[in-house]
Amino acid sequence: MKKRIAVLPGDGIGKEVVKGAIEVLQAVGERFGHQFHFSYGKIGGSAFDAAGTPLPDETLELCKESDAVMLGAVGGPKWDRQPPHLRPEKGLLKIRKELNLYANLRPTQYYSSLSDTSPLKNEVIEGVDMLMVRELTGGLYFGKPSERTQQNGEDAVVDTLFYQKEEMRRVIKLAFELARSRRAKVTSVDKANVLESSRMWREVAEDIAKQYPDVALEHMLVDNAAMQMIKNPKQFDVVVTENMFGDILSDEASVLTGSLGMLPSASISENGPYLYEPIHGSAPDIQGKNAANPIAMILSAAMMLRLSFGMEEEAEAVENAVNQVLEAGYRTRDIVSFGKKVVTTTEMIEEVKATL
Amino acid sequence: MKKRIAVLPGDGIGKEVVKGAIEVLQAVGERFGHQFHFSYGKIGGSAFDAAGTPLPDETLELCKESDAVMLGAVGGPKWDRQPPHLRPEKGLLKIRKELNLYANLRPTQYYSSLSDTSPLKNEVIEGVDMLMVRELTGGLYFGKPSERTQQNGEDAVVDTLFYQKEEMRRVIKLAFELARSRRAKVTSVDKANVLESSRMWREVAEDIAKQYPDVALEHMLVDNAAMQMIKNPKQFDVVVTENMFGDILSDEASVLTGSLGMLPSASISENGPYLYEPIHGSAPDIQGKNAANPIAMILSAAMMLRLSFGMEEEAEAVENAVNQVLEAGYRTRDIVSFGKKVVTTTEMIEEVKATL
Ligand SMILES: CC(C)[C@H](C(=O)O)[C@@H](O)C(=O)O
Ligand SMILES: CC(C)[C@H](C(=O)O)[C@@H](O)C(=O)O
Repeated sequence: MKKRIAVLPGDGIGKEVVKGAIEVLQAVGERFGHQFHFSYGKIGGSAFDAAGTPLPDETLELCKESDAVMLGAVGGPKWDRQPPHLRPEKGLLKIRKELNLYANLRPTQYYSSLSDTSPLKNEVIEGVDMLMVRELTGGLYFGKPSERTQQNGEDAVVDTLFYQKEEMRRVIKLAFELARSRRAKVTSVDKANVLESSRMWREVAEDIAKQYPDVALEHMLVDNAAMQMIKNPKQFDVVVTENMFGDILSDEASVLTGSLGMLPSASISENGPYLYEPIHGSAPDIQGKNAANPIAMILSAAMMLRLSFGMEEEAEAVENAVNQVLEAGYRTRDIVSFGKKVVTTTEMIEEVKATL
Repeated sequence: MKKRIAVLPGDGIGKEVVKGAIEVLQAVGERFGHQFHFSYGKIGGSAFDAAGTPLPDETLELCKESDAVMLGAVGGPKWDRQPPHLRPEKGLLKIRKELNLYANLRPTQYYSSLSDTSPLKNEVIEGVDMLMVRELTGGLYFGKPSERTQQNGEDAVVDTLFYQKEEMRRVIKLAFELARSRRAKVTSVDKANVLESSRMWREVAEDIAKQYPDVALEHMLVDNAAMQMIKNPKQFDVVVTENMFGDILSDEASVLTGSLGMLPSASISENGPYLYEPIHGSAPDIQGKNAANPIAMILSAAMMLRLSFGMEEEAEAVENAVNQVLEAGYRTRDIVSFGKKVVTTTEMIEEVKATL
């Protein structure tokens, strides 16, 4: 097969980890007889530096013409003082909206080889296998008004949590679909005892559940979910929630297993292209030091092979290669523990390629 | 001293734990020569059952005439299907608003005697001593509109995150004041890369920090805070944030040390009375079984002695009694671990009283 992939390295360690995914994909192409064509675009702070905007039109065009998008990371202290609409993050928010990436999928998985690096006790996290499905283009992130205002002559401010019912429906439906090929359980997280939007969310979830009698639905309040995630993460299979709750809970989930630098994500739209990015940020503190962990980006590429290109065997080959390299004791600095071999970003990439 | 205390047991285990606080306070009164006068009011589901509303006017009047309020817990499955304005939680939200309880203080503390019950590794939580300061009467909880609506003929819904600058100022200022008598560090949590309200929040925090050169201020994004809370909770001293973020993060913080059933809280207003309640909920599953942990409510009463009545010595006497009982190996079921002695609610209360 021939596939066109838009590559947006972004800022910080983005460039370094994206390189890893590309090299691994090239190795996959050779082994399985596919042609991957990579085109580069700018996003985030580096796009602002080059073109005065965190998401140039060319980048958006490039993405729309591609079969899939790979993104490194955006942001850094250099751009922190800029007005909101010129910040690196705005590039990310805009690409999500423009490509209609309504759902962000984040698997969190237990790696026995990494249990030393987790802050949680091994018996709490052993066997954790959860998939967070976060609504990505609605809610507080995009609702209007979002502005300074006045009340009785006093300074005030307003943000708006807005959802169309249909926006809830498609992401909750996706969660149920995904649960079918897993352990058939959906935990829908909301704050229905306070928010009207959460009460609608709960109704929609109940409604969709009727079409999936084979999938168990449970509702959980967001504050309780933040607790349960730590107390007993094994109870979760698929977790679905709105944008802001999802931002908080999926980051919380990502540190449970001690493998933040290992976790991939996929952002899904109705008609493609999908976007793949690691969960970690641009990590300006280790930028240029050849110390970043490229595995999250490499596993994001594996998700792309599976979800965008239907290449299940190829995806598994990449995932197995990563597992073997970890079993063999190779570690970047973020996941190192006693007795393991510390390697650089490029060495880790070489190991994964060689194992493939 | 003579003090009038409004007691609102509420629902579920509320009655059982409130009894513990009252008995301990009576013992304190005898030992230190104070008179505590207790008057009872209804709130939550039991108020709805008795009076058709989750917060009767009499209850509110009683609170306003008292020097402090002790609340057990509200809520339960029995009332879950009621319309929002008649739910037990509405009683809690309304009393916060009516008494102007703008800040909720939740200390989270490491108890070496409980480290077995924590899901986190001991080295991660050893020495944790953090105080969450949550804004309690603004934001998404009270903003209008909060209602069903339409967009282009489609069903939609809106909630509103609204703050007056002054509401931010008073709670952030309180956080700085509290930090002075602790380790002099304030972590202000927001989502300034997305929300306009968070950008105002950050400005206000910067502004107030100028009046407290002896206190260190750091900003943290809410998603990162959800991670840091697990990865390295020891870094936090005072954490201050808006209402919804505070709801999520303070519940997350409360399970770190494995002592959810032990954690008290205080809700503060400008002119009193303050309200004291445990962090745990009404726990309908163990209601009436004499199994609830009364310590969170007893420690809430200790906070009341300190913050509302200025009785520092008396507060410490209660806290020391609780510590000694734990050291002696007594545990309610929620905090039991190997080799400890399981006791009922009433037995635990007796032990604390006897130790006093
Ligand atoms: C960078 C930021 C705007 C973004 C978000 O809040 O969605 C990030 O935290 C994420 O989760 O991808
Ligand atoms: C019961 C509920 C409305 C309440 C809240 O969300 O504030 C509770 O979770 C709390 O934290 O006190």
